[in-house]
Amino acid sequence: MTDAKHWIERYRGQVDAWIERDLKRHSGLGERVAEAMRYSASAGGKRLRPLLVLAAGRYLGVAEDRLVLPALAVEYIHTYSLIHDDLPAMDNDDWRRGRPTNHRVFGEAVAILAGDGLLNEAFAKIAELADPAFESHDVLSALRHLARASGMDGLIAGQAGDLAAEHHNIDLQALEAVHARKTGALFQAACQLPAWLMGNQAAAERLERFAWHFGLAFQIVDDILNVVGDAAVMGKSTGTDAHLDKATYPKLVGLERSWVLARYHQGMARQVLGEDVGESDVLLALLDRAVERKA
Amino acid sequence: MTDAKHWIERYRGQVDAWIERDLKRHSGLGERVAEAMRYSASAGGKRLRPLLVLAAGRYLGVAEDRLVLPALAVEYIHTYSLIHDDLPAMDNDDWRRGRPTNHRVFGEAVAILAGDGLLNEAFAKIAELADPAFESHDVLSALRHLARASGMDGLIAGQAGDLAAEHHNIDLQALEAVHARKTGALFQAACQLPAWLMGNQAAAERLERFAWHFGLAFQIVDDILNVVGDAAVMGKSTGTDAHLDKATYPKLVGLERSWVLARYHQGMARQVLGEDVGESDVLLALLDRAVERKA
Repeated sequence: MTDAKHWIERYRGQVDAWIERDLKRHSGLGERVAEAMRYSASAGGKRLRPLLVLAAGRYLGVAEDRLVLPALAVEYIHTYSLIHDDLPAMDNDDWRRGRPTNHRVFGEAVAILAGDGLLNEAFAKIAELADPAFESHDVLSALRHLARASGMDGLIAGQAGDLAAEHHNIDLQALEAVHARKTGALFQAACQLPAWLMGNQAAAERLERFAWHFGLAFQIVDDILNVVGDAAVMGKSTGTDAHLDKATYPKLVGLERSWVLARYHQGMARQVLGEDVGESDVLLALLDRAVERKA
Repeated sequence: MTDAKHWIERYRGQVDAWIERDLKRHSGLGERVAEAMRYSASAGGKRLRPLLVLAAGRYLGVAEDRLVLPALAVEYIHTYSLIHDDLPAMDNDDWRRGRPTNHRVFGEAVAILAGDGLLNEAFAKIAELADPAFESHDVLSALRHLARASGMDGLIAGQAGDLAAEHHNIDLQALEAVHARKTGALFQAACQLPAWLMGNQAAAERLERFAWHFGLAFQIVDDILNVVGDAAVMGKSTGTDAHLDKATYPKLVGLERSWVLARYHQGMARQVLGEDVGESDVLLALLDRAVERKA
């Protein structure tokens, strides 16, 4: 195994352990909601967004264990968005990460609250950062950027655009605008968080461009796998996009050209990082993995 | 009109105007969600929580116009919680502030996203505070406290407890624990925000106790009005608690004793502020208004 592969396996396990510790047993009024939060947050998955936080930290020379809270924050935002997206009123999904979706286990009311709770916790995590190496001013700036990425001009706009595009013919540009928000915004925030926390504007811009292409490559492959993927391997239903008549790359340009586009963005992302700046090995390994995955 | 009454009328109008300006026309992908956010946030209402932020600021000598963003933050959290609470899977309410509830106008999917958007915006508002009089360190601390108040141990736990208490016999202590979170936590955060932003721990503690009693008095009157109130005056359905068999003060101790308890907490709140500390006139006027209201 290469160093990068080792790193990824190691920190994927670490992220699981951090989440477990952070959302530990909870008693009292919010017990059932806390259980539902834990159910979805600890369901595994690729942990791609928190790994991007840690890998971008490595690239900038920020030790991984100083980025635990930001890593949790992006994973909580991702998980909250999955719980709410899966609701009957939204995508009405029954399976996620190989298990019944949150609302199927806990009911809709608790699932809504569990999503709310995770979004709330995400911001709490950043606000709890008390690392003397990060200035309060930069922590606030990181929080502001994260809120924009997950808010009504970012993730939420993407989800709204995704719903609005069902049963409509939109063009490639419009589809890219949806994906840029639905997936890209949080990918970008994940990659940029360490740079914002360090107050490093130049690095933040470079990582923003890297994440832009990474996010598109990832989303195109996601669309492709929804058509050709194996539901058992993926742990979630496939064919759902076609069923909901969602706008996707395969629907718009076909499978073959979708692959070409995914490879294009993979190449562009590599190019942004260049050759000899920082420890880019893990960021690149995550990129390749995202394009070559089967699930 | 007394000075306090003038102040309240003036700043209630100001809060409306600030919200209007903050959630102004929005185009692009998130347009429909932004419209839904505006629909609920600009529906008026008492604006009690933002007024508490401003009144607590006045009490501590912090000018009102320096607390615009914190005032918006607590109102957005309140509004998000109303939108989600009104959903069919939760309280299934049709009317709110005299208008059809959000999901009845925009559909459930958009209503869920609008709530998410407002929660997100709330934290963004605090993170956007760039007042040189507030140290970044204190702004972060305020944000951390606010996240606790609205999170899985605060508002969300209260809502979960409220749902869990339907059709169950719970005692007064358990009911108080629900109310302390469902209403009290955000009341406390509203009153304490100016103190946190000033890094004034003593004031934060005093205002916490004031808000504790205020919150209970307010919630007891809310329960009472749900039984005896006039739906037309209140702008929302009445009798809904009994219909849902919710745990309330009137159900537990009867109407007469509920009034006694409301008056008791009103008196305790007055006592916390004492006589001659700061400009407590508006805080006290808001308290009296909350107990004597008809809606």
